[in-house]
Amino acid sequence: MKSDELFALLRRRGVLWPTAEIYGGAQGLYDYGPLGAALKRNIENAWTAWFVGLSHDYHLIDPAEILPEAVVRASGHLENFTDPEVTCENCHNAFRADTVLEKVRPEGVDGLSAAEIGEIVRARGIKCPSCGSATLSVPRPFNLMFGFDFGVTGRERVYLRPETAQSSYLSFARMWDVGRRALPLGVAVVGKAYRNEIAPRQVLFRMRAFTQAELQIFFDPERFPVPFDRVREEKLPVVRAARRQAGSEEVEWVTAGDLANVGGIPEFYAYHLAHTYRFYRDVLGFPAERIRLLEKSDQERAFYNRIQFDVEVNLDSLGGFKEVGAVHYRGDYDLGRHGQGSGRDLAVTLTGGRSVLPHVLELTFGPDRALWALADVHLGKDGERTLWRLPSYLAPVPVGLFPLIAKEHAPFALQLSDDLLDAGIPNQYDDAGTIGKRYARNDEAGTPFCITVDGETMADGPLHGTVTVRLRDSKTQERVLATELAARLAPALRPPRPTRT
Amino acid sequence: MKSDELFALLRRRGVLWPTAEIYGGAQGLYDYGPLGAALKRNIENAWTAWFVGLSHDYHLIDPAEILPEAVVRASGHLENFTDPEVTCENCHNAFRADTVLEKVRPEGVDGLSAAEIGEIVRARGIKCPSCGSATLSVPRPFNLMFGFDFGVTGRERVYLRPETAQSSYLSFARMWDVGRRALPLGVAVVGKAYRNEIAPRQVLFRMRAFTQAELQIFFDPERFPVPFDRVREEKLPVVRAARRQAGSEEVEWVTAGDLANVGGIPEFYAYHLAHTYRFYRDVLGFPAERIRLLEKSDQERAFYNRIQFDVEVNLDSLGGFKEVGAVHYRGDYDLGRHGQGSGRDLAVTLTGGRSVLPHVLELTFGPDRALWALADVHLGKDGERTLWRLPSYLAPVPVGLFPLIAKEHAPFALQLSDDLLDAGIPNQYDDAGTIGKRYARNDEAGTPFCITVDGETMADGPLHGTVTVRLRDSKTQERVLATELAARLAPALRPPRPTRT
Repeated sequence: MKSDELFALLRRRGVLWPTAEIYGGAQGLYDYGPLGAALKRNIENAWTAWFVGLSHDYHLIDPAEILPEAVVRASGHLENFTDPEVTCENCHNAFRADTVLEKVRPEGVDGLSAAEIGEIVRARGIKCPSCGSATLSVPRPFNLMFGFDFGVTGRERVYLRPETAQSSYLSFARMWDVGRRALPLGVAVVGKAYRNEIAPRQVLFRMRAFTQAELQIFFDPERFPVPFDRVREEKLPVVRAARRQAGSEEVEWVTAGDLANVGGIPEFYAYHLAHTYRFYRDVLGFPAERIRLLEKSDQERAFYNRIQFDVEVNLDSLGGFKEVGAVHYRGDYDLGRHGQGSGRDLAVTLTGGRSVLPHVLELTFGPDRALWALADVHLGKDGERTLWRLPSYLAPVPVGLFPLIAKEHAPFALQLSDDLLDAGIPNQYDDAGTIGKRYARNDEAGTPFCITVDGETMADGPLHGTVTVRLRDSKTQERVLATELAARLAPALRPPRPTRT
Repeated sequence: MKSDELFALLRRRGVLWPTAEIYGGAQGLYDYGPLGAALKRNIENAWTAWFVGLSHDYHLIDPAEILPEAVVRASGHLENFTDPEVTCENCHNAFRADTVLEKVRPEGVDGLSAAEIGEIVRARGIKCPSCGSATLSVPRPFNLMFGFDFGVTGRERVYLRPETAQSSYLSFARMWDVGRRALPLGVAVVGKAYRNEIAPRQVLFRMRAFTQAELQIFFDPERFPVPFDRVREEKLPVVRAARRQAGSEEVEWVTAGDLANVGGIPEFYAYHLAHTYRFYRDVLGFPAERIRLLEKSDQERAFYNRIQFDVEVNLDSLGGFKEVGAVHYRGDYDLGRHGQGSGRDLAVTLTGGRSVLPHVLELTFGPDRALWALADVHLGKDGERTLWRLPSYLAPVPVGLFPLIAKEHAPFALQLSDDLLDAGIPNQYDDAGTIGKRYARNDEAGTPFCITVDGETMADGPLHGTVTVRLRDSKTQERVLATELAARLAPALRPPRPTRT
């Protein structure tokens, strides 16, 4: 499906819609409806179960989204978190430089100076996308943070955080103090980040308010042991930076072991990269051939990132591979900067007495983008019907519960709905329209299990009654004892988790 | 415990701490650590299970926190969401008028004009709390919203939402379209709201970024049927507005039935008020005598609120009853204003053809305040030990899992930790220090169940091994088959829910 078509379907089903839709919407802001909110929460929970579940030493915290100016000055965002922007001197509209140059320079403008970009605009005679006149300005850096006054004196300035990572760095000292004072120490945040994107577009792929799920692992650069045997043989779809610079974006399947042994990637990095790949394949359920791990070159990545692989998923709606997450080896940049900025030395003393400024391995993930990708990859036609083949533990409504004939079977079905809820199985009662229509509605919502209470259920009585369980993908039906439903369904509704260290 | 003492304990345990603590913190902002984040999430989930669980027609959505200016203009917040502020002409500090008048006017300044407040300041010779000189200005209205530029043109202004309710009102039309097009229709949001409080204080009770859990029920003013018999006999601790105006704040225990029959409160309101009371008593576990439902008078409540009861909990740390939630009957104010503001008529056509502009019943709740209240009421000394008597389904760590002797029992204990996780039982492995120290740590964190793997477990083998389960409050211990643990613990870890309509 094309992006517009997919968005229209999601909007019609109440998965998401533009914020303040009745006012005409707000660029780059979306509201999740009942299905979208549940799906997004399930994605976030699956991420947490997987990544925070990787180790007993990884923890989830929930910090505020507002940062004092001193924080974003130290992190470098105040100075450097900018996109080059050109404005039209005729119509006064503003554009991202890479957007107006999209056609003549599809590879983007990363690494070019403002003067170089301006020269391309001039030389190629680029016209204003809005009014068409050749009056585009020389690019200037536009800071993407939302900043505002805080308190009543007008003396304090704060910013909505541009990435959740900063909250983890700020919390490191406290987490060290309240924890077991050992490395590695993982600090995860699932929460909002905000960017005043010059050109929000591609629906959930460039939003101005979005959710990030990030795990920052603070570790001793001299020693970050991982049970590498668990991933050694895992083949990863990588595109190395050197290969890309030689002109090929083709995926090579390389084992994690080879990546570490002959590829120059440290084991701790390859271990987490392999688990990241497994998350996309085994938890989100993307076909292996739609995933690639794209290494960024020295020129492309931020100067403090020593190694960076982006995780990309091939999406029909957006015309190719798009970034949904990444793994960054950030060195000691973050704790070093905040140590200087705050005046508090963030080095820690390890057992044995050695003092270390921890390095950071960052696993970052976009739940909004993942939600879109899950729709792109898993939602579509299957013959006549529209079907959302979501993994069952991600489905917003895991169980649809129907009385065959509302008048006769409603009380039993409603009771069963309550019983399942009491057993921890979310479900949605639905008595509107024919059973066929109810199946269709639930297929489209990704509901993996539809349960129907019928005459046979009633005849057998509450202890011996069976119901039909219909599976979304195969349309097969099976009769199951109502009293055994919860135990049968529960395992399918829990996201996979890795073996913990 | 006093507020300072309680905060110090919570900070030491990593429940919460000031945002950007290493930079000296930011007024009115707090980060939740691992225990706090889990507790807050459990509170939110318990709220959702209870209130969204009240009806098949109540739904949870997840909208953006940023609102275009047109929205807050229509809602009245741009003009009216202000607190009177006085500034000192000598030292230029700013203060809330009710704060500087706290001692001479403990009842607050609601309903007074700026001129009247200024007259009291002058007449009583109130001095600047900061520099002590008698140079306080006449009060001026200070808008509590955080506003900032949006987009790149400088022409768009947006605001962080001051209450989640607005997001539900904006979503009503879409929710009507994607739902079953019938009233009542409940739209719940659990999310952030932001207020530039002039004087943030009392830790989680007046924050600048906080979470709200709100359910907006859109209903037909001519007909909002509820199964009133379920609450008719429930005795509620009310303080009616008339009684308060006669000078008494004493609680009267009045049945929901009497409130409706002789108290002039509509049944739909009394029904939801009774369920609200039950939430505080039966779900959050506050003793009945610490809860009161305080009716606000015409002068106290916003002009569009037709009926308002605040839910207050008596807190030692804050010196008395404090508001944690409320029930507002807001009439058709909200959809009327947004209908005008957006130019889209928000009236709906009911089956039968009647057109109705729905009224709104709002149930509002503060998870941050509830978290603090749960610490105030349930955390304290029990003889020698410090104990947090949280309801088990709210406990951040429901299960502590210990090997008696780390070297010998760790493998079995770690396996059991994994098995419980796979069965949906969150737990935390702990092998540091003596068993006594581990119990103490977990008592303080509110962990209701501590499980110890010992020699007996090992001797009996994986299928027949028993472990000790030690209960937090009674300190009693019982041996339970390890294979039966999950089934035994699961029911205690699910929050109560009401019977659904």
